Amino acid sequence: MSVDSHSGNSSAVTRHYAPYVQADWGYANHWYPALFSEELADGGLRGITIGGHDIALRRSTGRVYALSDRCIHRGVKMSAKPMCLSESTVSCWYHGYTYDLSDGKLTTIVGNPDDSLIGRVGVRTYPVEEINGMIFVFVGDADYGTPPPLTSDLPAHVTNDPNDAPVPHLTDEGIVIRGIHRKLVGNWRLAAENGLDPGHLLVHWDNQILVALDRALPLGVNALSNEATEEIDIPGGPKGVMNRYDRPDLYQPVLENPKVDIKARGTVPHYFRTSLWVPGTLMVEHWPITDHVQYEFYVPIDDHHHEYWEVVATRVADDADRHEFDFKYENFFKPLALEGFNNSDVFAREATEEHYTRFDGWNNEVLCDMDFSIIAWRKMAARHPRGFFESPYQDED
Amino acid sequence: MSVDSHSGNSSAVTRHYAPYVQADWGYANHWYPALFSEELADGGLRGITIGGHDIALRRSTGRVYALSDRCIHRGVKMSAKPMCLSESTVSCWYHGYTYDLSDGKLTTIVGNPDDSLIGRVGVRTYPVEEINGMIFVFVGDADYGTPPPLTSDLPAHVTNDPNDAPVPHLTDEGIVIRGIHRKLVGNWRLAAENGLDPGHLLVHWDNQILVALDRALPLGVNALSNEATEEIDIPGGPKGVMNRYDRPDLYQPVLENPKVDIKARGTVPHYFRTSLWVPGTLMVEHWPITDHVQYEFYVPIDDHHHEYWEVVATRVADDADRHEFDFKYENFFKPLALEGFNNSDVFAREATEEHYTRFDGWNNEVLCDMDFSIIAWRKMAARHPRGFFESPYQDED
Amino acid sequence: MSVDSHSGNSSAVTRHYAPYVQADWGYANHWYPALFSEELADGGLRGITIGGHDIALRRSTGRVYALSDRCIHRGVKMSAKPMCLSESTVSCWYHGYTYDLSDGKLTTIVGNPDDSLIGRVGVRTYPVEEINGMIFVFVGDADYGTPPPLTSDLPAHVTNDPNDAPVPHLTDEGIVIRGIHRKLVGNWRLAAENGLDPGHLLVHWDNQILVALDRALPLGVNALSNEATEEIDIPGGPKGVMNRYDRPDLYQPVLENPKVDIKARGTVPHYFRTSLWVPGTLMVEHWPITDHVQYEFYVPIDDHHHEYWEVVATRVADDADRHEFDFKYENFFKPLALEGFNNSDVFAREATEEHYTRFDGWNNEVLCDMDFSIIAWRKMAARHPRGFFESPYQDED
Ligand code: FES
Ligand code: FES
Ligand code: FES
Repeated sequence: MSVDSHSGNSSAVTRHYAPYVQADWGYANHWYPALFSEELADGGLRGITIGGHDIALRRSTGRVYALSDRCIHRGVKMSAKPMCLSESTVSCWYHGYTYDLSDGKLTTIVGNPDDSLIGRVGVRTYPVEEINGMIFVFVGDADYGTPPPLTSDLPAHVTNDPNDAPVPHLTDEGIVIRGIHRKLVGNWRLAAENGLDPGHLLVHWDNQILVALDRALPLGVNALSNEATEEIDIPGGPKGVMNRYDRPDLYQPVLENPKVDIKARGTVPHYFRTSLWVPGTLMVEHWPITDHVQYEFYVPIDDHHHEYWEVVATRVADDADRHEFDFKYENFFKPLALEGFNNSDVFAREATEEHYTRFDGWNNEVLCDMDFSIIAWRKMAARHPRGFFESPYQDED
Repeated sequence: MSVDSHSGNSSAVTRHYAPYVQADWGYANHWYPALFSEELADGGLRGITIGGHDIALRRSTGRVYALSDRCIHRGVKMSAKPMCLSESTVSCWYHGYTYDLSDGKLTTIVGNPDDSLIGRVGVRTYPVEEINGMIFVFVGDADYGTPPPLTSDLPAHVTNDPNDAPVPHLTDEGIVIRGIHRKLVGNWRLAAENGLDPGHLLVHWDNQILVALDRALPLGVNALSNEATEEIDIPGGPKGVMNRYDRPDLYQPVLENPKVDIKARGTVPHYFRTSLWVPGTLMVEHWPITDHVQYEFYVPIDDHHHEYWEVVATRVADDADRHEFDFKYENFFKPLALEGFNNSDVFAREATEEHYTRFDGWNNEVLCDMDFSIIAWRKMAARHPRGFFESPYQDED
Repeated sequence: MSVDSHSGNSSAVTRHYAPYVQADWGYANHWYPALFSEELADGGLRGITIGGHDIALRRSTGRVYALSDRCIHRGVKMSAKPMCLSESTVSCWYHGYTYDLSDGKLTTIVGNPDDSLIGRVGVRTYPVEEINGMIFVFVGDADYGTPPPLTSDLPAHVTNDPNDAPVPHLTDEGIVIRGIHRKLVGNWRLAAENGLDPGHLLVHWDNQILVALDRALPLGVNALSNEATEEIDIPGGPKGVMNRYDRPDLYQPVLENPKVDIKARGTVPHYFRTSLWVPGTLMVEHWPITDHVQYEFYVPIDDHHHEYWEVVATRVADDADRHEFDFKYENFFKPLALEGFNNSDVFAREATEEHYTRFDGWNNEVLCDMDFSIIAWRKMAARHPRGFFESPYQDED
C-alpha cells in the first residue's frame, strides 16, 4: 500500500564533502560582516557573536576596533552595559578592567590603578575593515597570523556580464549599499544552500513583488550539462559556485508540469544570476532589478542560529542618484524585496532546521537533479577550509 | 521528629507491568483519533503528531488520506504551508516534491518533471477511518501489515447497562458526537490513569457542574472485592478495565472521614461508570448526564505531551434531537463539563508530570488501596502490546 | 597585535577552596529564610524551594510548620492547590493523602479512611523558627539530628562598632524589619560574592540614591594589609569574613585614576561596613543610612537560581518610631535602596551566570588585588561545610 520512505540516497555522496558536514559552527579564519557603519556611532560600543566568538565593536575617533566581549576578570560581556572612559580604551562596567583598543591589553583597573595584572594580561583583538558602510571582522584562531585580504572572502568581481553591465562589487567606489540583518533560527548552511538553490522557486510563487512586476517565473530550471554550475577558484582569492543562468545552452526553464495544476506565471522576462561564495555569501546579479545586486551573508552565530544579512547595491553618480536610491530602498527594495520576497526564504530555512538537527538531515536527504548546484557548492566549500569554529561551551548543562 | 519519606512501595509490583513502564512514547500499531471531520475541509491539509510520527492528513474528493508529513527531500513538514495542486497528490511547498495520496510515491517534482527519482521513492502512508465525525489513523510500524479493525481499539459495546439503556458506541449509527481536543503537557499514561482513577474525586470537589446539579459526590469509593475492577479481554477485540460502579456489592461510597473536616456533598444520586481501554481511551457511561457518554482519548504526541480528546455522544432520532444536542453542547456540555469539570483533571495531570519525569515517578510512588484499579489497568495494558513508539530523534542536542 | 587572553590565573588558588567550587547547589544543613511572616496567613499554605528541597509551609493556630511539598502518593506539590481540612494536618488536593503537621505521618486518606498505609508512611518535616517577622527553615539531610541554633547561621552580633552604635541583630528585641525577596537567575555564590565584593563600586556609579544624598563614593578601595578582611570563626557560632572599612589603616579609598576620565563623586562621607557569613548572608552595617542595617540572603533554589532577600532593620522605641520607619521604608528604603540601588547588583549577578555555567568560570577567572576579600570568603566558606545540597533530579531529559 505504501512504498518505504527512502532516506539518504546521498550517503555515498556525503563523503565527498565531509568537512562541510562537520562545519556546524561555521568556517573559521574568514571575514564576516559585523555591523552596518550607521549602527555604530562614534564612541559607541556594541556586541555581536560570530561562530561562538563574542566580540565587542567600538568606534573611537573614527576608527572601528574589535575585541573579545568577554571580560577576563569574571566573564561578563562588556557590551552588556557599555562604559567607555577614554578614547583609547574600553572599560568593563562591573569592576573596571580597562582594555586598550589597539592591542587588548589590560591598561588599568578603574578603582585599582596599581594592580599587578596591569600590562600583563588582556583580551584578544580582531582585525577590522570598514568599507562602503559595512564593518567586517576577521574571526578565527588567535594565532592565525596576518589575515588574507577582505576581497578573498567576498564574491569575485563580475567581468562576464552578458549585457556588459556588470553589477558593482562590495568594495567598489561610487556605489551605495543599504540593507538589513536579523538573527534567524537555523544552521548557516541551510540558509546558504537555500540562497543558491535553483529548485526553490516554488516558495516565491506568490510573492507580491513578482506579481507587481509581472515577472516571468519558471516552475524550475533544468541543467543541461555538468557545466551549468561553474566552480570558481581564484588562487588566493574568492572560491565559489555560480549558476550560469546567462547561458541558455546550460539552463532551460520548466514552464509547466502536466501532472499538477500549476503553470509558470508572468510575462516580463528578467535576467539575473546567482552565485555562492566561501564562507557563505550569496551574490544575485541584477536583482531585485537590473543594474542592482543583492548580496546576502549567512553568518554563523552558533550551531543553530545565523545572522541573515541582505544588502542591495548599485552605482551612483551623484547625490541625486543617491537620494533616488534611498527613496527606492525605503519604499521598494526593503519592503517588497528584502522583506516581502525573502521572508519566504526565511520561512523555508527555519522550517528546515528541525530535520537537520533532530533527524540527522545531512545523512537523511533524498536529493534530486536540481540539487547538483548545491552538491557543487558543498564540494567547493569542503575543499580548502581555513579552519572550523568549535563550540565554545565547556560545560553544557 | 519526622518519619522517613517512603518511596516506592510499589517496586515489587512494578515488574508485573514493566512493558507499560517502558512505554513512555506510547503504544504503536493502534488506531488513534487524528482530527474531527469538521477540522479537515475538502482539499485541506493538516499536520498532526502521534507517538513521534508526523502525519499529514488530506481530504480529497471526500476521502481522507494520511501520509508522512516529512518530505523526503530535505525534511520539512508539508503541512507547514499546504500546497495541493491536484486531487490525487500533495506537493511539498519548498521544492515541489509531489506525492501520490494513495501510495505515497513521488509522482512528480513540480519544477523538474523528468527527475529520475520519480516513481522510485516516496513517503509512507497510514491507514485512515472516518466515522461519525471523527478521523482515526492507524499509527505504528511501516511493516505491520493489515491493521486490525478500528473497533478493536475502541471501548467495547456496552451490553450490561444496569438500567438496560446502554450508551452508544462511537461507531453506532444514529448518534451524534461533539467534542474538543488540545495539546497538554504530561505523559499520556498520567492522563489515562487520571481518567480511570477512583481516588481522584477530590479534585472535582468544587466543580460548578456538580454544585449546579446538586449531584451526590462521595469523598471516595472503596472496593469491596477483587472483582470491583473487571478486566475485559475480548479475543481480537477491545482490552480494558472497568470500575463496576453499577455493583453496590463491589463498591461502597465513603461519605465522611472523621479525621478531617469535609463531608460528601450533594443530594441527587447519579449513576455512571468508568472504563479504560488500550491504547488509552476512557469511556464514562451516563456522563455528563444519563443516556450520554463521554469518551476521552489520551493520544501520545511525544514522551512529555499528549493530545487530550473529549467527546460527548448520544443517540438522536431526528434533526430536532440533533439541534437540541447542539444547543446543549455549546451551552452546557462544553463549558461546564468538557472545560469546567475536566479542567480540574488537566491541572492534576500537568502537575503530576514533573515527578514522573525528573524524580523517576514510576519507581517512586506510594500507592494505596484506591489504586487497585490503576494497577489492574497497568497489568492489562502491559499484557498484549502490539508495539511501542520510540523516540524518532537521532541526534538530540 | 593582540596579547593572548589570559584564563585562569587563579587555578593554583582554586584548590584552596575546592569544596566551595563544588557547592553549586548550596550548603546543606543550614538555616535559611523561607518567607516573611506576613506572607503566611493563619491557615495558609505556601510552597518554596531551597537547595532542591520542595517545602510546604503552613501556619496553623499561630505556629509555622514545614513539610516536604512532594506528596508521597504520586509526587504532586501540595502547595499547587492548598487544601487544609484540619488544624493539625495538610491534605494533598489530588487524592487526599493527609499528613500530620508535627511529624509528617500519613494520618488519613480523605476518601479512604481505613487504608493500610495510614500511620506507616509519611513525608519528612523541617525545623522552623520564626522571629521578628521572618520565618527560617533548617534544610538538609533528613538524618542530620538536632539542628544548631539559628544564630549560628546568621551574622554575629556587632560589638566593635567604631561609633559605639552597633546595628541591631536579626534576633534582637525592640527592632523592626522590612524587606523583599525575589527569584533571580544565577548561582547563589555569584550573588554572595557580589554582595561582599569591594571591587564592584563601579556598578553603583550612577545610582540615584547616592546622587540624591551626595554621598562620597570612591572608585575603589585598596587594602593595605592582609588584615583588611577579617576572618571571624566563632566556635559553634557564625563563620564569616568582614571588610574592615572602619579601619583607615587597613583600607584606602581610590579617588581618581589618571588613565581614564572618571573621578570619585559626592562630598558627604558615610561610614558603612560589609561582611559575609556562611551559608550566604550579607550584613551591611549602617546602610542604607546610619543606625540601620541591611541584611541580604542568597538562598540557593537550584544550581542556576537563587532567592534574593533584602531586609532593612533598625531599633524602634515605640509605635511612633515604627510608623516613621514604615513610612521611610515605603518611600525611601524600598524604592531607592532595595530596588534602585541593588537592582544594579541584580543586573551584574545575572550577567555573570553565563560565564560560570557555560565557560567553567570557576576555573577561568583572572582575579585582581581587589578580590582578596572574595578569596578570603571562599576559603572560609570551604573550611567547615556541614554538607552540600545535591541535584534531586534522578532522570534529566
Ligand atoms: S567582570 Fe569585568 S571587571 Fe570584573
Ligand atoms: S524539502 Fe520538500 S521538496 Fe524540498
Ligand atoms: S498525589 Fe497526593 S494524594 Fe495522590
